Amino acid sequence: MEKIKPRTLSGFMELLPQQQMQMDRIMETIRSVYALYGFTALDTPIIEASEILLAKGGGETEKQIYRFTKGDSDLSLRFDLTVPLAKYVALHYSELSFPFRRFQVGKVYRGERAQRGRFREFYQADIDVIGDESLDITNDAEIPAIIYTLFSRLGLKRFQIRINNRKILNGFYAILGLSEKSGDIMRTVDKIEKIGADMVRAILVDDYAISEADAGEVLKFIAIRGTNAEVLAALEQYRGKNAMFDEGLDELTTVARYLGGFGVPEENFAVDLTIARGLDYYTGTVYETTLLDHPEIGSVCSGGRYDNLAEYYTTKQLPGVGISIGLTRLFYVLGEQGMLNPEVPTAPADALILPMTEDLSAAVALATAIRGAGLRAQLYTEPKKFKAKMNYADKLGVPFVLFLGDDEIRDGIVSVKNMKSGEQVKVAPAEAIELISAFVAAQNANAPILDI
Amino acid sequence: MEKIKPRTLSGFMELLPQQQMQMDRIMETIRSVYALYGFTALDTPIIEASEILLAKGGGETEKQIYRFTKGDSDLSLRFDLTVPLAKYVALHYSELSFPFRRFQVGKVYRGERAQRGRFREFYQADIDVIGDESLDITNDAEIPAIIYTLFSRLGLKRFQIRINNRKILNGFYAILGLSEKSGDIMRTVDKIEKIGADMVRAILVDDYAISEADAGEVLKFIAIRGTNAEVLAALEQYRGKNAMFDEGLDELTTVARYLGGFGVPEENFAVDLTIARGLDYYTGTVYETTLLDHPEIGSVCSGGRYDNLAEYYTTKQLPGVGISIGLTRLFYVLGEQGMLNPEVPTAPADALILPMTEDLSAAVALATAIRGAGLRAQLYTEPKKFKAKMNYADKLGVPFVLFLGDDEIRDGIVSVKNMKSGEQVKVAPAEAIELISAFVAAQNANAPILDI
Repeated sequence: MEKIKPRTLSGFMELLPQQQMQMDRIMETIRSVYALYGFTALDTPIIEASEILLAKGGGETEKQIYRFTKGDSDLSLRFDLTVPLAKYVALHYSELSFPFRRFQVGKVYRGERAQRGRFREFYQADIDVIGDESLDITNDAEIPAIIYTLFSRLGLKRFQIRINNRKILNGFYAILGLSEKSGDIMRTVDKIEKIGADMVRAILVDDYAISEADAGEVLKFIAIRGTNAEVLAALEQYRGKNAMFDEGLDELTTVARYLGGFGVPEENFAVDLTIARGLDYYTGTVYETTLLDHPEIGSVCSGGRYDNLAEYYTTKQLPGVGISIGLTRLFYVLGEQGMLNPEVPTAPADALILPMTEDLSAAVALATAIRGAGLRAQLYTEPKKFKAKMNYADKLGVPFVLFLGDDEIRDGIVSVKNMKSGEQVKVAPAEAIELISAFVAAQNANAPILDI
Repeated sequence: MEKIKPRTLSGFMELLPQQQMQMDRIMETIRSVYALYGFTALDTPIIEASEILLAKGGGETEKQIYRFTKGDSDLSLRFDLTVPLAKYVALHYSELSFPFRRFQVGKVYRGERAQRGRFREFYQADIDVIGDESLDITNDAEIPAIIYTLFSRLGLKRFQIRINNRKILNGFYAILGLSEKSGDIMRTVDKIEKIGADMVRAILVDDYAISEADAGEVLKFIAIRGTNAEVLAALEQYRGKNAMFDEGLDELTTVARYLGGFGVPEENFAVDLTIARGLDYYTGTVYETTLLDHPEIGSVCSGGRYDNLAEYYTTKQLPGVGISIGLTRLFYVLGEQGMLNPEVPTAPADALILPMTEDLSAAVALATAIRGAGLRAQLYTEPKKFKAKMNYADKLGVPFVLFLGDDEIRDGIVSVKNMKSGEQVKVAPAEAIELISAFVAAQNANAPILDI
């Protein structure tokens, strides 16, 4: 028979078992931290009607979308988790309680040009809090506090959550009389880390016909640096010139104050006036999160406050605040940087049981006892040579191999080999379970990410 | 602005938060049981090249598939988890260890005609053990033992795993000289529960030109009933007439014997000669699982032994045995039957904290302590009236509301209201945590499915 060459599409991450376990551990940590903060899990369809997903229309996204017809239906694969959330909240509005706190960890699809480290199928891990008509500003402070807790549990240390407020930016541009150009300016300023201040100035002056003086004011403004207290103090000097600016400054000041209260250390967040987020729908607080030793990655976790989640589907005013982790890309980068901790369980089992007798009942009983203790046990029953069995155990990377022969069964014991140390002991099954449990507990206590 | 009516595509399950938590608990139980038996998790892409997914070609499946082009690529959404596994094993053969034990819980897509209880996007939850050239028959017995453990943990009681062996069927048809028609016969016999014995006989005689005598033999054969021991004894009477039959009988006898050894009670499995499985690639043991009180649902968990997993992609001989749960349909049916246990946690939080002071620091500290104990806590900070806050707690279904006012903060205590009993106590935070923990632990001990 003619064989078809097996392949996985480029831009689609497919992991080997050991890597998959590392990914799953990160995902599990994300889910559990989100849940600890009272967010409920959603799992919306990957396929939606195109008219739903593209309600907003236009832009880069539409070109990247996977869109097709099936029968009479014009369908698309979701390209983020926010649009499906908007649909969900509009559709199920009367069945939900507000503030509605949901998390979703799911695959999304964008047919981007394939390149190293860019994915067409990737996981996003989102949280959002949606209010009905209003939503308190404390939520804007809790969201980065959750990210701080999560990243810390994942093992990340050298990261910074950078915060700004779009009202401050919009207010500032209004003060300069540049409101109509504020979108262009923000998109340009957003690139300052990549292209530098001089290039930003040139684009503002040449492309957007902003005066040298105003461009200077813009650059001076976004150059405000210092501790969070210093930046907020510098912003106070602009107060009283524009109502929106003042409102944004109040919000930012409140968020910065609460963030400390929520337990986020000063070194892990920064008021940063260069953060604008390209997306139009952010209207207040905006976030980006960078790994301090890997600025080249850009933001690994971004989001912000929006006035109206579901305006394309409902007349209800549904303000919200949320944040999203680009998980697949983050995992890829962590792997590239050697930051995935190998000292977490990556073998398919904690113990491989090798029965040395025809009758398997003793081995099955032992496996059942081990599993009863919450440990993962595999029974190896292939009729292979001893050496082949040990090779298999070695390749799998199981930490323990358990031998059960006639002697062991007669004496009610089991031979336990620690595959790393090579040490082998004969102990009662209960003792074997304790031994394995202690090892697994120590492994499980390790964070999935190494960040020195 | 013109609004687009929010909707979810028909045939796509989208759950409300409470139901989603029930679904997630079932899924979590599946994953954890699969992991306990030493299966490693895979997460392959949902999109594959069409030439890969359709390598086998033809059949009902091809019509149902979601297939489309993106740029120059001919793409399809996976319609099961077996074909992607075959590709995965062929592609990563040299990096895997055999027997390769993997589980995957993931969404698959079939554009079936929409009808109640039929889904176009649905979860399958699969395990497979793949051998390299050979795979011991004990694996055929362990797979249903895993399903038994899983179903028991889920709370199911009245279920039966029905087992047969295709070699017995093929051997039997060879004895009658009907080998060439065995596929047609098996597909017909497979419908006996739906259409009855007389209709099966009529189809065999009229449609497939089988003599009345032979049709009688077929019906007599599949009518063999009794305890497992009785059925196996009845089959012994056919021994010696066909080598394949004898091999199948040996396998089935071995599997039945080991199943007991693996701890599956006699009442939860049955040797059943009517089980054939429609799919061509099963070559030995076959399984179906039925809920005894809901035969109308059909099999909720099916699978079997195959000689060659990946013949379309590789010359390697990779025999395997596996089983698949149609999870979305199962969940739907359980819901319809009122079999989902409401006494598991379905609220987004175990405790809702209502701070009664401007300063949130005490409330944040309390929330942090609660979360540190692994409990889910939500801080409610919207500036609403007390009654609105309690209504919210009520609608969410949180079991406990914690009040923290000036008095409580001064005295180092917290007011804890049990929302079900209405009882309210003032206790130290540590005591509040104990109280909530005890309640949550009791809830978590409940199985997700009710089966009386």
